[in-house]
Amino acid sequence: MILTVTANAALDVTYQVPQLRPGGVHRVGSVHARAGGKGVNVARVLHALDEHVVATGLVGGLAGDAILADLEDALPEAFLRVAGESRRTVTVVSTVDGQATVLNEPGPEVTGVEWEQFAAAYLELADAADVVVLAGSLPPGVPAQAYAALIARTTAPVLLDTYGDALRNGIRARPALVTPNLEELAGLLGHQPDDVPAACRELGVPAAVTLGEDGALLVTPDGAWRARPPERVRGNPTGAGDAFAAGLARGLAYGEPWPQVLADAVALSAAAVAAPVAGAVDPARYRSYLAAVTVEEA
Amino acid sequence: MILTVTANAALDVTYQVPQLRPGGVHRVGSVHARAGGKGVNVARVLHALDEHVVATGLVGGLAGDAILADLEDALPEAFLRVAGESRRTVTVVSTVDGQATVLNEPGPEVTGVEWEQFAAAYLELADAADVVVLAGSLPPGVPAQAYAALIARTTAPVLLDTYGDALRNGIRARPALVTPNLEELAGLLGHQPDDVPAACRELGVPAAVTLGEDGALLVTPDGAWRARPPERVRGNPTGAGDAFAAGLARGLAYGEPWPQVLADAVALSAAAVAAPVAGAVDPARYRSYLAAVTVEEA
Repeated sequence: MILTVTANAALDVTYQVPQLRPGGVHRVGSVHARAGGKGVNVARVLHALDEHVVATGLVGGLAGDAILADLEDALPEAFLRVAGESRRTVTVVSTVDGQATVLNEPGPEVTGVEWEQFAAAYLELADAADVVVLAGSLPPGVPAQAYAALIARTTAPVLLDTYGDALRNGIRARPALVTPNLEELAGLLGHQPDDVPAACRELGVPAAVTLGEDGALLVTPDGAWRARPPERVRGNPTGAGDAFAAGLARGLAYGEPWPQVLADAVALSAAAVAAPVAGAVDPARYRSYLAAVTVEEA
Repeated sequence: MILTVTANAALDVTYQVPQLRPGGVHRVGSVHARAGGKGVNVARVLHALDEHVVATGLVGGLAGDAILADLEDALPEAFLRVAGESRRTVTVVSTVDGQATVLNEPGPEVTGVEWEQFAAAYLELADAADVVVLAGSLPPGVPAQAYAALIARTTAPVLLDTYGDALRNGIRARPALVTPNLEELAGLLGHQPDDVPAACRELGVPAAVTLGEDGALLVTPDGAWRARPPERVRGNPTGAGDAFAAGLARGLAYGEPWPQVLADAVALSAAAVAAPVAGAVDPARYRSYLAAVTVEEA
């Protein structure tokens, strides 16, 4: 079983308007809401691939009700309720040119007692997991060491997909794999990396870095690899990072060799870009991409 | 008792961001939510003035829960629940320059059966009312004749504060007073009015028209009056229209003479502009403005 953790789950709301005009009054044409947050999105991809996945994390308030109602039909979940109000993310999409403007609420203030309750429930779930994905931001009130503390107490391999201080601290607890993007890598090192494989080695833990249309790089103590998708895939990049993380998690769960883990993640990510619906993956396209991804030592 | 009807109640959400950039990703600094919609806002002003007011209308879904939870401590309410999801209005306020960008969801799709249930409950409440305020838009699914049908079955005087087809149809049922703004007046007549009192007379029902900082005009079969606030009030115009309607409703409820009704409404509206909190009215300032409002025949 793959366990995904979404500490700061979200209700992702999409508004369609003709065009966003600062200072203007807009009638929203259509409103669409669904459960989100990185761990939830990763779990959706794994579930669509018929993998056994459980999504956990923290939800609260009316937005929490809406998140759980949406997950009920979508995924096995084991979320813990907190007193605060889960965040909404509002994406305002222009029907004229597709431009997306995002407004992210901060999320619920989580108390120390609530986090300890969650950590206890998490450890039970993690004991039964083949791999754990710790994904996205920590909610307000939870210290930046929180992921590191969970990793230190987890036997299963952990994929840590976060940023900032939560990533910096988490790395010290030696997760099985981290997924910084180039900007996050620069932030961790304090300078722009000239040589990305060398920069990843500085982190001291295996790292997978997406390079957008150019594929991805995986740097481990056993070697470094570069995978390229079979073609420049045009489409919607929303959800490509989630599919990439889902592919990595699945590879870790099956104990696949690193080059195969990377090829799988790049094929899934490309299949997500090509899918008409953000966050969805076309299984047939995934299989055809997987057969054609090239992997070479980096 | 004054009964206010908010057929399309809203959860008014305010987001603070440094500056809204179309296409950008924004972390929302603070999130504030409260029950709204024109009838609710009018009721708040009346309640703050110690008037006996009851707010009714339609709410649904999780936003409806949040609306009712907010009203519980604020106002006597008698809302009917519908299956759809009440609308949210999201106002994105820039902390840099105060610029407000508004996104209005459409509101719940209300069925014919739900509207008939509401109409029956409304008529019982309206029987006990000294005046009724029908305010704001009709929700999706409710025909534009709906306000007219309610007015035709209401014994108490009705203040109709809406726009578009709901206003156009409602006027035919002869409400006690309507409150078009200049733009709505032009829409009703099909041309820009040169002479506002003459244009109001064309409507065939008493009409009160706000003129912003210049006060307001009231045109009735018994005469026409113009009221001016004692000074150019600077401040927050949000809520001034709601306070104006509240003043008119109270004047109708007490059977005050028309010039007094108008003076009261203009003083309340000016006191709302001067209040530091949008939608609030400072009672002391209201009394001092009321003493100094000038009313002349128009």
